Amino acid sequence: MLHFMSDYMDGCHPEVLERLCQTNAELLPGYGTDPHSLRACDLVRQACGLGGEADVFLLAGGTQTNVIAIDALLAPWEGVVAASSGHVSLHEAGAVEFTGRKVLELPQREGKIGAGQLAAFLEARFGDENREHMVYPGLVYLSWPTEWGTLYAKEELAALREVCTRFGLRLYVDGARLACGLACGDLALPELARLCDAFSLGGTKQGCLFGEALVFPQGAPAHFANHIKRHAGLLAKGRAAGVQFEALLEADGAGDCLYWRIGRHAAAMARLLRERLAALGVTFAVDSPTNQIFPVFEDAALERLSGRVSWSFWEKPDASHTVVRLATSWATRQEDVEALASLVGEVLGQGPAARQGGRP
Amino acid sequence: MLHFMSDYMDGCHPEVLERLCQTNAELLPGYGTDPHSLRACDLVRQACGLGGEADVFLLAGGTQTNVIAIDALLAPWEGVVAASSGHVSLHEAGAVEFTGRKVLELPQREGKIGAGQLAAFLEARFGDENREHMVYPGLVYLSWPTEWGTLYAKEELAALREVCTRFGLRLYVDGARLACGLACGDLALPELARLCDAFSLGGTKQGCLFGEALVFPQGAPAHFANHIKRHAGLLAKGRAAGVQFEALLEADGAGDCLYWRIGRHAAAMARLLRERLAALGVTFAVDSPTNQIFPVFEDAALERLSGRVSWSFWEKPDASHTVVRLATSWATRQEDVEALASLVGEVLGQGPAARQGGRP
Amino acid sequence: MLHFMSDYMDGCHPEVLERLCQTNAELLPGYGTDPHSLRACDLVRQACGLGGEADVFLLAGGTQTNVIAIDALLAPWEGVVAASSGHVSLHEAGAVEFTGRKVLELPQREGKIGAGQLAAFLEARFGDENREHMVYPGLVYLSWPTEWGTLYAKEELAALREVCTRFGLRLYVDGARLACGLACGDLALPELARLCDAFSLGGTKQGCLFGEALVFPQGAPAHFANHIKRHAGLLAKGRAAGVQFEALLEADGAGDCLYWRIGRHAAAMARLLRERLAALGVTFAVDSPTNQIFPVFEDAALERLSGRVSWSFWEKPDASHTVVRLATSWATRQEDVEALASLVGEVLGQGPAARQGGRP
Amino acid sequence: MLHFMSDYMDGCHPEVLERLCQTNAELLPGYGTDPHSLRACDLVRQACGLGGEADVFLLAGGTQTNVIAIDALLAPWEGVVAASSGHVSLHEAGAVEFTGRKVLELPQREGKIGAGQLAAFLEARFGDENREHMVYPGLVYLSWPTEWGTLYAKEELAALREVCTRFGLRLYVDGARLACGLACGDLALPELARLCDAFSLGGTKQGCLFGEALVFPQGAPAHFANHIKRHAGLLAKGRAAGVQFEALLEADGAGDCLYWRIGRHAAAMARLLRERLAALGVTFAVDSPTNQIFPVFEDAALERLSGRVSWSFWEKPDASHTVVRLATSWATRQEDVEALASLVGEVLGQGPAARQGGRP
Repeated sequence: MLHFMSDYMDGCHPEVLERLCQTNAELLPGYGTDPHSLRACDLVRQACGLGGEADVFLLAGGTQTNVIAIDALLAPWEGVVAASSGHVSLHEAGAVEFTGRKVLELPQREGKIGAGQLAAFLEARFGDENREHMVYPGLVYLSWPTEWGTLYAKEELAALREVCTRFGLRLYVDGARLACGLACGDLALPELARLCDAFSLGGTKQGCLFGEALVFPQGAPAHFANHIKRHAGLLAKGRAAGVQFEALLEADGAGDCLYWRIGRHAAAMARLLRERLAALGVTFAVDSPTNQIFPVFEDAALERLSGRVSWSFWEKPDASHTVVRLATSWATRQEDVEALASLVGEVLGQGPAARQGGRP
Repeated sequence: MLHFMSDYMDGCHPEVLERLCQTNAELLPGYGTDPHSLRACDLVRQACGLGGEADVFLLAGGTQTNVIAIDALLAPWEGVVAASSGHVSLHEAGAVEFTGRKVLELPQREGKIGAGQLAAFLEARFGDENREHMVYPGLVYLSWPTEWGTLYAKEELAALREVCTRFGLRLYVDGARLACGLACGDLALPELARLCDAFSLGGTKQGCLFGEALVFPQGAPAHFANHIKRHAGLLAKGRAAGVQFEALLEADGAGDCLYWRIGRHAAAMARLLRERLAALGVTFAVDSPTNQIFPVFEDAALERLSGRVSWSFWEKPDASHTVVRLATSWATRQEDVEALASLVGEVLGQGPAARQGGRP
Repeated sequence: MLHFMSDYMDGCHPEVLERLCQTNAELLPGYGTDPHSLRACDLVRQACGLGGEADVFLLAGGTQTNVIAIDALLAPWEGVVAASSGHVSLHEAGAVEFTGRKVLELPQREGKIGAGQLAAFLEARFGDENREHMVYPGLVYLSWPTEWGTLYAKEELAALREVCTRFGLRLYVDGARLACGLACGDLALPELARLCDAFSLGGTKQGCLFGEALVFPQGAPAHFANHIKRHAGLLAKGRAAGVQFEALLEADGAGDCLYWRIGRHAAAMARLLRERLAALGVTFAVDSPTNQIFPVFEDAALERLSGRVSWSFWEKPDASHTVVRLATSWATRQEDVEALASLVGEVLGQGPAARQGGRP
Repeated sequence: MLHFMSDYMDGCHPEVLERLCQTNAELLPGYGTDPHSLRACDLVRQACGLGGEADVFLLAGGTQTNVIAIDALLAPWEGVVAASSGHVSLHEAGAVEFTGRKVLELPQREGKIGAGQLAAFLEARFGDENREHMVYPGLVYLSWPTEWGTLYAKEELAALREVCTRFGLRLYVDGARLACGLACGDLALPELARLCDAFSLGGTKQGCLFGEALVFPQGAPAHFANHIKRHAGLLAKGRAAGVQFEALLEADGAGDCLYWRIGRHAAAMARLLRERLAALGVTFAVDSPTNQIFPVFEDAALERLSGRVSWSFWEKPDASHTVVRLATSWATRQEDVEALASLVGEVLGQGPAARQGGRP
């Protein structure tokens, strides 16, 4: 079985694991006050080009990070604007609404919303006579990379930021797959940090067993540890996240670190797979540069792949085709990619006639 | 520095860590559907004497487990009854109320509530003409061991269960320190499982990096995975909890397992410490048989211990004394206990006169 | 000034007021347990062709009624499906989300959603592999008449009901303007009652000072008075709503009642106004048969009407035109309609040239 | 039947009703923007000795007012401190918790808490090392008069205010029965307004059909209309509350107004009843100076009163006695009081022997 179902199928990166082993016997205070957690937060600041004014918190999961950040950044009368395909809109079981907040969904295009689209929405909303009867837009949620594997270019982000600033909204970026985005896009982490009011730097999908760093470049809302606790998200052994992020972000001699290497590797594997599949005539639902790609297969072809490769169902564009998601990670090897390409070539090469013959 | 501040200062037990290392390279599906998680849940069932009718879920933290369980077990009109010293009453930053539920607090005695006390409260409440204007008691929350290190005896629990049944309430037991309770009390795990509608079997304080097993002996409420996700508690790499619980609960040849051994060790270390301190004339705020003990020190003595041993402040019974909590864990060594006893002896031996003389 | 801004600009209908005066001196128990409230609920049942199995509750306002009904009808994992123009989607300040529930918005067409559209959405949603990560659709919210003054025909409602039943959803109808819908549509109240799991029979916009009747044809969820109280919606002097609904629904000799008369009058006045405006060449944004009409005016014309007639701004279809809402009620007189038509005729008759000349 | 069950058994005061009739035909804008509502808010300001910096909102009910005020005055990490007998603690079905807020209950004494008790609680709480794991006290809720009919004296209130200020808490007073408190206590309304961050001036129990004025002497939190709407508490025909409060607070020639007269009358009737009952040897559970009194009756005596007078059950101090609440209002007549006294005299005069003889 070849595994391309998701980028959270592996354990943690061996270097992360090694660090967990090295530090395991230390006796340390809890709730993120240990030296490893403090150092990890400092390493996040450094990677983001931020100083002591920035606050960093280490949390367990991505939905948790989104919900905790959104709830903290909104005033009581505000809601969060997001693409209809955004993780908070669609795949978090209403966790944002569960804490009393409305997601104001905008139609997406390749997983993204545009600055013009956002401005038009905000202009209409804030100009409405009935605005006191409506949820005020208070924050824009973007995922970077998006759920469709796409990226906002630097100038797209800057334009969205400008609209947010003009209308008094904050900007939050869900960086569950941030390392891969940084490896593929035209944006450096300090640039992202300057554009956002808060963002997450995801560990779970990039080398950790679990863990997301939540960054507030200009400082976090008051009593943030209490906020996390009230959201039932405070880890007793915060060290477990701290040690992992230390391993991810510690500079090696060459000014590089594990986090960047993981992002580059996953991106490279996805690029190779995209090229191999394209060469076989496979088309894609969207042109995604990062570690998630979305090939379109005839259902019959997919059936023949079934049991030999794992993928995620994405959507059915018509009655006889299916879009699937294939994801790569730090654990994907070049030989896995080649094996998948070879398998797809074999299945597609059989052609419709052979296919019909092959089924009872 | 001697560390007795809490039972979550260590990493995970070496045998747990070893298992994480062994399984790290496996590629597995997410969200707790992997074979390790499934097996871990089966091992929990077996340890509890439960069959397939029981549901088990692995979650990250204790507050999260309490909130998710309580919210799932209550009807909309109901609240949870707890001792005023209960973790959900006092030390979860209002996480239960944050999800819309009231904690109905009863006065505690050594961290416990009594069956008679509960019955009297319920009788008055359900007999009140205004009951539709009041929160209906729907669930009793007990911690076992309690926050004061005490244990409900089997017959105390049975009596509380009887009252719950009589009034139509459910019973939930917070087993954050369950292994230690089982090592010290007169109750076997299958007996506990029969008495409860749900309970947690805590890993964080008993050998895991993180992780709590939530057990529903008669089956969980519908769509429980969705419930966890809505509470932002679903782990992408659920395997990380699964592997740890496998390590904890797998039977060794002798019908024993790591979880029981950890519980017995922490209990034995606490017992030894209690004996050593008692021999030095130290008194205790409460007679706690488990891994948390609560000695009373003169403030001046405590000051001299400061910087040489870590503890948790608990309360001030008067202006010149302080109750602290000392906790043991799987990582506490007999030599640590002896060193602490010796240190306390030294400090107390100085006497008030010496003490006064010794300070500038 | 001519008033067409809304249908809640008047006080209560004189016959309702008279009844409030007649009963004012009675000393009665509170919270809706008085004989007037009980009788009002019986009159609602009778008007709906329902027997003792149905439950009726009298509440103060429309948003309150929607939120209380939706929260009661949803399981924890469910959300409410509504048109994007639905009152709960747009104009209730996120009150539904504030209680933890997601509104799953479907694109609207003239204020309505279609059975086919709903079925396609539900099929995709319930067929999704990730459905445990998504909010389950549990209830469909329809407003009847809609916020655009339109009506679902009987067969449209029946088709929506069928889809709900097929997928296990409940159906709730917001009848804030129900009397007017019944006066204009092809649906009798008992037919509506058979199609819904719950609906409101609005008083505020149809002759009351305040008050909505919430009807559960097959009975309400358990402890519903407690549910209302928890939502802070229980009126101490419930009699005030009871007496008003008694006045609205008590049969006169001729098998008619005030509620129907109010609905017919408002509808007739709106019809007359629509005819008069159409005869002047005014076009409408939507063909609405009920007491809300949506003429499109050139902005210059609207400016000349300003200060002489009150309306509600609705939307701007382009840079130089505006859609406004004109609403009639029991208090609208034929002479008001004729005066408005005459005023509009005067303003439109001036023509663009005159208009330009008339402005400095 | 003599009615002393509550002070919301009557309709509205005839002068209030008259004003509703006089203004009923006016066509007015909704949601509290009409001239009557605006003037009513001004009259509230004047009565409180407040200027334009103060904000006043008119709401429908008491629980709603409490919940909306408390939620608005608390930061996310804060909860509300209240006596265990407080309305928000006990008789609002968990409406405060339903919006995510914890009620931190302090033991009550005659319905009150003391400044020393509050200071001790706050000192311990804010001094606790674990305070980030606990709900921060952010607001003190007092009812004035209390649920036990008692009053905080001016200096008691001032002392509580001082503690609030010292620890950074706000102070909210639930004035559901404010007029009666002002008639009995040593406090003038402007003095109360100076001591509070917010308070309610109750109409429902003092002459209105419904309606509470919520006063923020130093101005309300931002977007308060949106806040009310999100809590589902915005009245479409806000005029209905406005007109009633106009009638209550408009000055007559003599510098008096209906609201004060209603408070004085209810207080006088309660005083008379208390004297009459005391003269018959009846004792009281608490010495309450306002319109709620709490006589203790032998159960056998109460049984003989049953069906002839209505009361509210309060509590059972022992197996053979019951405390009931008797309440007076603007509608209580002196002859009702005398009739009740005479009835009680008759019942008590029968004596235990007669009583035994009189029962089969």
